[in-house]
Amino acid sequence: MDPRATRSRQAILSAARELLLDQGPAGVTHQRVAQQAGVGRATVYRHWPQAEQLLLDVMDLAGLPFFAEPRVPLRAWFRRRLRELADELAMPEVAAVALTLMQGAVWDEQIARQRDQFVRTLTERIAAGLALATRSGETGGEASSRAGTVPDPHDAAAMLVGPILYRTALQGGSVPDAFIDRLVDNVLP
Amino acid sequence: MDPRATRSRQAILSAARELLLDQGPAGVTHQRVAQQAGVGRATVYRHWPQAEQLLLDVMDLAGLPFFAEPRVPLRAWFRRRLRELADELAMPEVAAVALTLMQGAVWDEQIARQRDQFVRTLTERIAAGLALATRSGETGGEASSRAGTVPDPHDAAAMLVGPILYRTALQGGSVPDAFIDRLVDNVLP
Repeated sequence: MDPRATRSRQAILSAARELLLDQGPAGVTHQRVAQQAGVGRATVYRHWPQAEQLLLDVMDLAGLPFFAEPRVPLRAWFRRRLRELADELAMPEVAAVALTLMQGAVWDEQIARQRDQFVRTLTERIAAGLALATRSGETGGEASSRAGTVPDPHDAAAMLVGPILYRTALQGGSVPDAFIDRLVDNVLP
Repeated sequence: MDPRATRSRQAILSAARELLLDQGPAGVTHQRVAQQAGVGRATVYRHWPQAEQLLLDVMDLAGLPFFAEPRVPLRAWFRRRLRELADELAMPEVAAVALTLMQGAVWDEQIARQRDQFVRTLTERIAAGLALATRSGETGGEASSRAGTVPDPHDAAAMLVGPILYRTALQGGSVPDAFIDRLVDNVLP
C-alpha cells in the first residue's frame, strides 16, 4: 500500500474509534467517518465498503498486543502484561471498543466470531506462559502444592482479565499495582 | 396499579428484554415492543413515554437481587450468591442487559448513572458481608494473617464478579462450582 493510502487508512480508523466513543456503534457511518477523518466519502468506501467491517477493524486494532511472547519469571511477566492491559482499558476509546465487542457479539455473528477469536488468542497466550513457567520449574515444587494449584489457562484468563475489566469498565478509576499483584498471586500461588 | 396495568407492564418489560437480546438497544422501539407484547402502542407510551427509560428499566430489573442480605459463614454465602450470579449471567437475555448497561454507559450519562448505582450497590453489599464476617471472627485470626489479607470491598467485588462476567460474557459455557470456590478462596484466604 502506498504511504498516502496508509495514512488515510489510519486517519479513517482513528476517526471511527473517536466516533464509536462519542456516539456508539450507530455513529460509525461512512459519512461521519469521512467528515471526522478529513477525507472524501469515496475514500472510506474504497477501504471499507461496509461500515460493519470498519467497526470490526477498529475493534481488532485494540485487541492484539496483549500477552504476546511469554517470559519467565512468569510472575513478573504477568504483572507487566496486566499493567499494560489495565492502562489500555483505562483509555475511554479502548474501553468503548472492548465493550462494543462484548455487547455486539450478543446478536451479531460476525462480531461473535471476532470476540471468540480474541478470547481464544488470550487463553492460548496465557497457556503458553503457564507452560513455560512449568518447564522452568516456576509453578511446580513444594511451595506450590502447599499454597494451592495453578488454575488451567481458561480459568487463569478469567481470573486475571475479568477483574481488570470489571475495575476499568465498571468501577472506573485507576488500577493500582497492588491490585495487579494480588491477581497474579491468585493464579500463581 | 390495577392488575391489568401490572400485567401489561410486565408483558412490555419482557418484550423489551427479548427485543434487546434479538436486535440490540436500537431494536427497543415503542412500535416493536407493542407488537411483541401484544398490546397497543398507546399502552407502551402511557407506561414509558421514552424508549430509553424502558431500556433502563429492563436493565434495572436484572441488577437488583445480587448479594442482598449477607449471612455467615461468609464463605458459603459468597458461594451461593456467585452461583446465582453465574446462572443469571449464563442466560443470554441477562447477559445482553448487563453488556448493554456496560457499553451504553460509555456515551450515555443516564445509563452511566445507572451503572454506577449498580456497581455501588454491589460493593456496599459485599462490604456488609465482609464486615459481618469480621465481626463474627471468620476473616480474622492467625490463619488469615498467615495466608494473606482480605481485600477491601472494592477489590473484592472486582475479584469475585469480574471473573464470572469474563467467563459468562466472553468465554461462554457454564461456570463450574470449582471455579466459584476458587474465586471465594481468592477473597477469603
